[in-house]
Amino acid sequence: MFYGVDYYPEHWPEDRWEIDAHLMEEAGINVVRLAEFAWAKLEPDEGLYDFSWLDKAISILSRHGIKVVLGTPTAAPPKWLIDKHPEILPVDEDGHVKGFGSRRHYCYNNPVYRQYTKKIVTAMAEHYESNPDVICWHIDNEFGCHDTTVCYCDNCMKEFKEWLKERYGTIDKLNESWGTVFWSQTYKDWDSVIIPRRAVTSHNPSLLLDYKRFSSDSVVKYQKVQIDILREITPDKKITHNFMGLFNQIDYYKLAKDLDFISWDNYPINHFSDSIDQISSSIALSHDVMRGVKKKNFWVMEQQSGPTGWEEMGRQLKPSEMRLWVYQSIAHGADAIVYFRWRACTFGTEEYWHGILDHDGIPRRRYNEVKQVGHELRKIGAMIEGSEVKAEVAIIRSFDNEWAFEIQPHKRGFRYMEQIKKYYKYFYSRNIPVDIISPEDDLSGYKLVLAPGLIMVNEKITDNIKNYVRDGGTFLTTWRAGAKRWDNRMNDQSLLGPLKELLGIDIEEYSVIPDDESIDVVFGDNKGTANTWYDVISPVTAKVLGEYKADYISGKAVITVNKYGRGNAYYVGTIPSDNIIKVLLDKVTGECGISVAGLKSNEGIEVLRRIKGADEFYFVLNFNRKPSTIIVNKQMVDILTGEYLNGEITLEPFEVRVLSNR
Amino acid sequence: MFYGVDYYPEHWPEDRWEIDAHLMEEAGINVVRLAEFAWAKLEPDEGLYDFSWLDKAISILSRHGIKVVLGTPTAAPPKWLIDKHPEILPVDEDGHVKGFGSRRHYCYNNPVYRQYTKKIVTAMAEHYESNPDVICWHIDNEFGCHDTTVCYCDNCMKEFKEWLKERYGTIDKLNESWGTVFWSQTYKDWDSVIIPRRAVTSHNPSLLLDYKRFSSDSVVKYQKVQIDILREITPDKKITHNFMGLFNQIDYYKLAKDLDFISWDNYPINHFSDSIDQISSSIALSHDVMRGVKKKNFWVMEQQSGPTGWEEMGRQLKPSEMRLWVYQSIAHGADAIVYFRWRACTFGTEEYWHGILDHDGIPRRRYNEVKQVGHELRKIGAMIEGSEVKAEVAIIRSFDNEWAFEIQPHKRGFRYMEQIKKYYKYFYSRNIPVDIISPEDDLSGYKLVLAPGLIMVNEKITDNIKNYVRDGGTFLTTWRAGAKRWDNRMNDQSLLGPLKELLGIDIEEYSVIPDDESIDVVFGDNKGTANTWYDVISPVTAKVLGEYKADYISGKAVITVNKYGRGNAYYVGTIPSDNIIKVLLDKVTGECGISVAGLKSNEGIEVLRRIKGADEFYFVLNFNRKPSTIIVNKQMVDILTGEYLNGEITLEPFEVRVLSNR
Amino acid sequence: MFYGVDYYPEHWPEDRWEIDAHLMEEAGINVVRLAEFAWAKLEPDEGLYDFSWLDKAISILSRHGIKVVLGTPTAAPPKWLIDKHPEILPVDEDGHVKGFGSRRHYCYNNPVYRQYTKKIVTAMAEHYESNPDVICWHIDNEFGCHDTTVCYCDNCMKEFKEWLKERYGTIDKLNESWGTVFWSQTYKDWDSVIIPRRAVTSHNPSLLLDYKRFSSDSVVKYQKVQIDILREITPDKKITHNFMGLFNQIDYYKLAKDLDFISWDNYPINHFSDSIDQISSSIALSHDVMRGVKKKNFWVMEQQSGPTGWEEMGRQLKPSEMRLWVYQSIAHGADAIVYFRWRACTFGTEEYWHGILDHDGIPRRRYNEVKQVGHELRKIGAMIEGSEVKAEVAIIRSFDNEWAFEIQPHKRGFRYMEQIKKYYKYFYSRNIPVDIISPEDDLSGYKLVLAPGLIMVNEKITDNIKNYVRDGGTFLTTWRAGAKRWDNRMNDQSLLGPLKELLGIDIEEYSVIPDDESIDVVFGDNKGTANTWYDVISPVTAKVLGEYKADYISGKAVITVNKYGRGNAYYVGTIPSDNIIKVLLDKVTGECGISVAGLKSNEGIEVLRRIKGADEFYFVLNFNRKPSTIIVNKQMVDILTGEYLNGEITLEPFEVRVLSNR
Repeated sequence: MFYGVDYYPEHWPEDRWEIDAHLMEEAGINVVRLAEFAWAKLEPDEGLYDFSWLDKAISILSRHGIKVVLGTPTAAPPKWLIDKHPEILPVDEDGHVKGFGSRRHYCYNNPVYRQYTKKIVTAMAEHYESNPDVICWHIDNEFGCHDTTVCYCDNCMKEFKEWLKERYGTIDKLNESWGTVFWSQTYKDWDSVIIPRRAVTSHNPSLLLDYKRFSSDSVVKYQKVQIDILREITPDKKITHNFMGLFNQIDYYKLAKDLDFISWDNYPINHFSDSIDQISSSIALSHDVMRGVKKKNFWVMEQQSGPTGWEEMGRQLKPSEMRLWVYQSIAHGADAIVYFRWRACTFGTEEYWHGILDHDGIPRRRYNEVKQVGHELRKIGAMIEGSEVKAEVAIIRSFDNEWAFEIQPHKRGFRYMEQIKKYYKYFYSRNIPVDIISPEDDLSGYKLVLAPGLIMVNEKITDNIKNYVRDGGTFLTTWRAGAKRWDNRMNDQSLLGPLKELLGIDIEEYSVIPDDESIDVVFGDNKGTANTWYDVISPVTAKVLGEYKADYISGKAVITVNKYGRGNAYYVGTIPSDNIIKVLLDKVTGECGISVAGLKSNEGIEVLRRIKGADEFYFVLNFNRKPSTIIVNKQMVDILTGEYLNGEITLEPFEVRVLSNR
Repeated sequence: MFYGVDYYPEHWPEDRWEIDAHLMEEAGINVVRLAEFAWAKLEPDEGLYDFSWLDKAISILSRHGIKVVLGTPTAAPPKWLIDKHPEILPVDEDGHVKGFGSRRHYCYNNPVYRQYTKKIVTAMAEHYESNPDVICWHIDNEFGCHDTTVCYCDNCMKEFKEWLKERYGTIDKLNESWGTVFWSQTYKDWDSVIIPRRAVTSHNPSLLLDYKRFSSDSVVKYQKVQIDILREITPDKKITHNFMGLFNQIDYYKLAKDLDFISWDNYPINHFSDSIDQISSSIALSHDVMRGVKKKNFWVMEQQSGPTGWEEMGRQLKPSEMRLWVYQSIAHGADAIVYFRWRACTFGTEEYWHGILDHDGIPRRRYNEVKQVGHELRKIGAMIEGSEVKAEVAIIRSFDNEWAFEIQPHKRGFRYMEQIKKYYKYFYSRNIPVDIISPEDDLSGYKLVLAPGLIMVNEKITDNIKNYVRDGGTFLTTWRAGAKRWDNRMNDQSLLGPLKELLGIDIEEYSVIPDDESIDVVFGDNKGTANTWYDVISPVTAKVLGEYKADYISGKAVITVNKYGRGNAYYVGTIPSDNIIKVLLDKVTGECGISVAGLKSNEGIEVLRRIKGADEFYFVLNFNRKPSTIIVNKQMVDILTGEYLNGEITLEPFEVRVLSNR
Repeated sequence: MFYGVDYYPEHWPEDRWEIDAHLMEEAGINVVRLAEFAWAKLEPDEGLYDFSWLDKAISILSRHGIKVVLGTPTAAPPKWLIDKHPEILPVDEDGHVKGFGSRRHYCYNNPVYRQYTKKIVTAMAEHYESNPDVICWHIDNEFGCHDTTVCYCDNCMKEFKEWLKERYGTIDKLNESWGTVFWSQTYKDWDSVIIPRRAVTSHNPSLLLDYKRFSSDSVVKYQKVQIDILREITPDKKITHNFMGLFNQIDYYKLAKDLDFISWDNYPINHFSDSIDQISSSIALSHDVMRGVKKKNFWVMEQQSGPTGWEEMGRQLKPSEMRLWVYQSIAHGADAIVYFRWRACTFGTEEYWHGILDHDGIPRRRYNEVKQVGHELRKIGAMIEGSEVKAEVAIIRSFDNEWAFEIQPHKRGFRYMEQIKKYYKYFYSRNIPVDIISPEDDLSGYKLVLAPGLIMVNEKITDNIKNYVRDGGTFLTTWRAGAKRWDNRMNDQSLLGPLKELLGIDIEEYSVIPDDESIDVVFGDNKGTANTWYDVISPVTAKVLGEYKADYISGKAVITVNKYGRGNAYYVGTIPSDNIIKVLLDKVTGECGISVAGLKSNEGIEVLRRIKGADEFYFVLNFNRKPSTIIVNKQMVDILTGEYLNGEITLEPFEVRVLSNR
């Protein structure tokens, strides 16, 4: 199993490299990521390549048994390139150029930048083609971060028109799809089509969605430029890119398609948001989202190893917290852990983004924890390698749908992913594994598929879902399902669009629910509330499971189920309170026969199973800051300690157990 | 009585038009507004007119007895025009062009746009001149919305200088009026005068006020371009424009002057503000403001008929809520109700701005309610037509004053209209009708005139008020009255300027009151508080009615009344708590002999009377979400039901009664 | 003693000047500041000078015994100059030009503006060279206000490169200092170096700090252009500039160096911040900061004399409040009080910034208070003139350090000055005088020197502090001390950098403390909390004084003291709660033998002593809104009243006593 660290030898004197490599080896490190921001060091001036320093670093590492993931350095074009071609710089919606001085200062659609990208990638590929220590390429870095997916420059304008031509064929079709007759926005030819730069007020929602799709596609296309070169020159080396968990501006299913495997950057405690600590179910969801983009195991390419920070910092990690996250990563399908980063940098914007070592390079508490895990993984790595999470439940996450809600949140502050989190949390708290998948993925292997917020479907997705239910699957979707065409227009026949028959209902009317209001609902004997939205449902063939108890809609249906083929389709016309979600999903999972892990755990303990053939590995993770217990029903072995366990077991705060049936 | 709907046939297939017309007729609809955003459909390319589709729609509607208000489509210039003349686009204060992609993307002062405006308006006028179904023109749409009153382009700069020359005559006069000697801002000639684009910090307040006046005048002038054409070609057709209630960036008194009648857009429950529901007194005030701009009855051109929404939505309307608003509109002087809109559009920015019909075009609850009202109005329309609200109380609302406070709020967050609302609410809660008028309007018909926040007066206004009081009128004004000259300089003789003699007081000193402080005041035996501001008043000839009870100003006057001629002038040197406003106005209205409606009502029931000759119509509106009662002192007939009523009557939530003495 | 007012004769008719001068004389006024915004009046068009009006004003004032501080009018370049040279205007980071219409609309580095500056300053200097009434020059006005220290124009870009060349010598040294190897930001030559205009995300922190230093130096250099001319032509006249208290964008130590004395603008109650009233300890700190920039007495050039206000206003001054502030100013080292301003202006942006007289020019309460103070100062001025505050305690305030924390606040919302305020408040509440000094100032005279937030030191500062402690001084610093090199890189050897030996500790690890967390600490028997940050300290030679009582760091050191040479160095690894600061500083001041004023006072009474030879003057200031007492231990005389006092004395709200041992 690969156990690694992100390393920047170029930031330190050469005489330190040997010390670093030695410390890494001691800690069990066997892989590093290198060079992904080193363009100016590799090509200090146009055409003047210098790989000598990198060769030397690689050779020192190699002597300590450490392999290399090599980054293409395109996330940070050097100043000489920007000075020659300032037109590479991205532009915001007001026409302001975003200049040099940080990173990601390029437009994905810039043809000049594509040429320079090809040159540096080719040069690196040719230089390292025969180097056996370089085992994998890492393309660029965190595509889209710092809000860089979308650019408003003239190149983008030009390419967008080409993209639209490809999609719509004729300008009339575009006008129809976007509904440009509204507010006299009709385009008489391709030339006249706009990109959504600053206008007097809001742009057309179909244009907005297409510009998001186009921008996402532009990233995929830019990545492909690099991949094509690498595949040709170094066909034997793997290729990856570091994804960003729940980041949602690039269609990760498409971005992943061209890669051998995906990796991602996992920072459970960071300073970006108001609440510094992420809750464990959110980290778990991120892992599952990441496993879902290719439906296979992944790497963590940046595993947090210290406080994050730029101008402001997140908090310090407590003892054993980092180790807990590593095992959570593995539990959810990580096949390799690479820490970010080896040592805190003493300069630059990320000066306060801490690594395993502090600025002074002295190994301390966090290094020791990394070393402990390194030794553990040396023991258990081979055992768990090749094992996988097997889920009976899938939640559909669609970028097109997420974007549709981003453009039109319906209710102020509503976010597509927040609704998914609510459903996900139910499964998480019961230790039921979940796959997060694309709406176009094969559904046949699942007992239950949920699609919260499925506002937009196309024919392929519709067929996929209908076939799944017809063949006996259980499907659950929510308010606004099917409301929109794929071009982001409303369906004008039924609010449920092509899902109407599947769901067996009509929507009489609907409304947002203001924040200071709350509508009572009942589900059997259970009382709860409806939030954010209410649909007033007329069952056609469906059976009513829950109803409103308030105001003029009292007695109207809010939750229904419809028999369709050999399966069932549930519809939830609101965001119910958690207790209603619980009784609903208890019923649904019960009827589907979803199996629950054999381990009962206190709240705050996560249990997830990886399977390889007959071998099962239960990762038991105590996220509580207090001791908590699980009950093991049959004898198992903790493969970390060799201890045989049965009955009630107490885990200390942040403690980890890896139990096996072997 | 006209009962209508805003209709966009161009959004729907032609084979639907007949169905729509039929459904309209069924619901009692007899007028539609058409075409106000259809420029690209009417003139798909320069000079290429196509009225055929519109003619057809009009003829179908006509066959169903439906007349047409025809919009000039200038609120949304088509793309071909912007591509030919991008200089039409408006510019913000930083010089950013606000581009194509929504609506209102033009500068009112652009000479090219004026030419294109003339061409399309002329073409429409000539085409429909002899069409008897077209009964009225509707100019553009919601002038000034989306913050489009003010533009900072070079045309505006040029026109502003002309406007200033007209106003000031010489540059020396301008320098004196603006006080440009402050901070060395003296202009040596007209060329050097600026518009208030982004500066290092705040601009001169006199420049700011004049730029607001100029921007408002520019809209009036632009509207006049259209009106002149229409009056010449189609002298028999009426002309209107849809106003926006309390919108305050255009001087509505001036904008209304050139129109035959005004109409306005009434959305009581919308998603724009944090609180989705407007309170009923605010809607009432909006109606009265609208009736006041021409001092005559008006149309509601957009009466809400479903949830509002762009990217976010307001809530659904409850049963009978829409009907309640319609009768409130009529009560306050609406002579026609036109709903916005017939059917929710399936595309475009306003996709979620719902109409009578939902996206699927199926008539449901809201259609039925529209139909109910349609049938009711067929019964009572003729009776109430021609009746009017008669008010003994007027509140002065001055745009110049509102702008002065917008530029200098004095206390952070203070808004001119909020103070007016406080006084208005007293009358509203007592069912006392109020006219909202211009400071230049004839005051002689009123028993009481209030002018809260009258910070700025000119000679005409001063004379108007003084003559009114001298002849026996009762006048009430508040802190800062008369403080400023018409050019937005402070008066340098007295803080009260030309109102000093009228009010019979001096202001010794004044202060804002910080939010966390509160100053006790007494008015007779009543204790209350002073908020926002305190004036320390020295009575000269006035009598003290209220005084402070706090700190170093304890015992100083806060409310006074001065005998002036045969009338009385009240001065309120703070914003008193509601209980003090109540006792003060109880006293004032008592002494003036203001009559209160013969109907006593619970709080939350609004009663307003329209009068035609000897006929009186009492509109009784229950805004409470619970049953509430009124007491009818003499027998009246409910003209909706034919029922004869006397004594205590209970109204269900949202119920309406229209009682008559006939 | 000078007692004055800021006066703008150009704002008023000439026939008022005599009245004003008379009223001033009556009030004891003997100095005015004139002309600092009068460029357009002095030079209405290029080269056309008109000093006649100013000469006349000066001569009228002179006849009333009033001297003149004459302002150079460069804070407000006239329109004719901007029209000729729009390139003078400053530019923001997005490239937006900040245009004409307010003030300070020039770039300090603009060579054209330097030429025009020289011309107007030369003309004024030559004209007033022999005028004995003009005793002092006042350069420009409030350098840096309205966020004008930093500009992003091409001139600044060019000058910045020159500044960097001077500082770093070679581009390689710059690259090393800034750490441009991070994110491939290496500059290959001076031409390619950037200024921190808008980028994709955050700039390099070393670039940011240097741009702040450069911008500050640019102001100092621009001021020097004026000073050089004035020194040459009018060598006998003093030169000053009005500083802004805690304003922190210009290094005031450098700006002060070229001036004869500094003056500052003191507005204790203003409308800028959310809380209108500043607390008295903040005003006191501002005075001490101002006294510290030259380590000598100062003028108050703008002493608040009425409500402040632009578009919004601050509150009115209560009776005696202004007088209280005047005596506080004197207590802290003011040698002259100049009120802003004589009379509220009736036009312009500062229309609501009130003066001694209101808009109507009638003397009222505030005038009478000014007059009272004028008469008092006539009595006691000569006595106290030449006396000085003598402090045994100094707090180091470093602009470089403040900027480092501004660029990287470490914890969201942390501000360098807030920590200084916490320590300052301890001394304030005990009436212990404090000097606020530069880290390069001579420390030898102090018993105790504190340096909260000393994140960055250079060799000179390190030596200064170490020598001070070695020779027996007591020094206290806090978390992050020494962490950074002077070029804003982290030290890579020790977190404490060159201060490690002095402090005798190591830092094992550290963290921000999230807002919703609190960590218990103990100091002896005292329990308190740690906030914002925790350092985990390993004592090397230091003694532990306080430790954490929480979580995994329980028992670890938080406060230490290290014997170094003959002195002691304290280290505080957090921001302790106030009670811990109290017990810590009680101990420290006790051990240092800091003397406390002989007067014991209630909380809210400030006592500060000025000394001249054997004479002591105790300024006793009651900031409470209620009567409060002090205890006088030996007989003293109140030099305001002539009263002899001893024992307990009660002061009314805002009452002032000036006690002397004479």
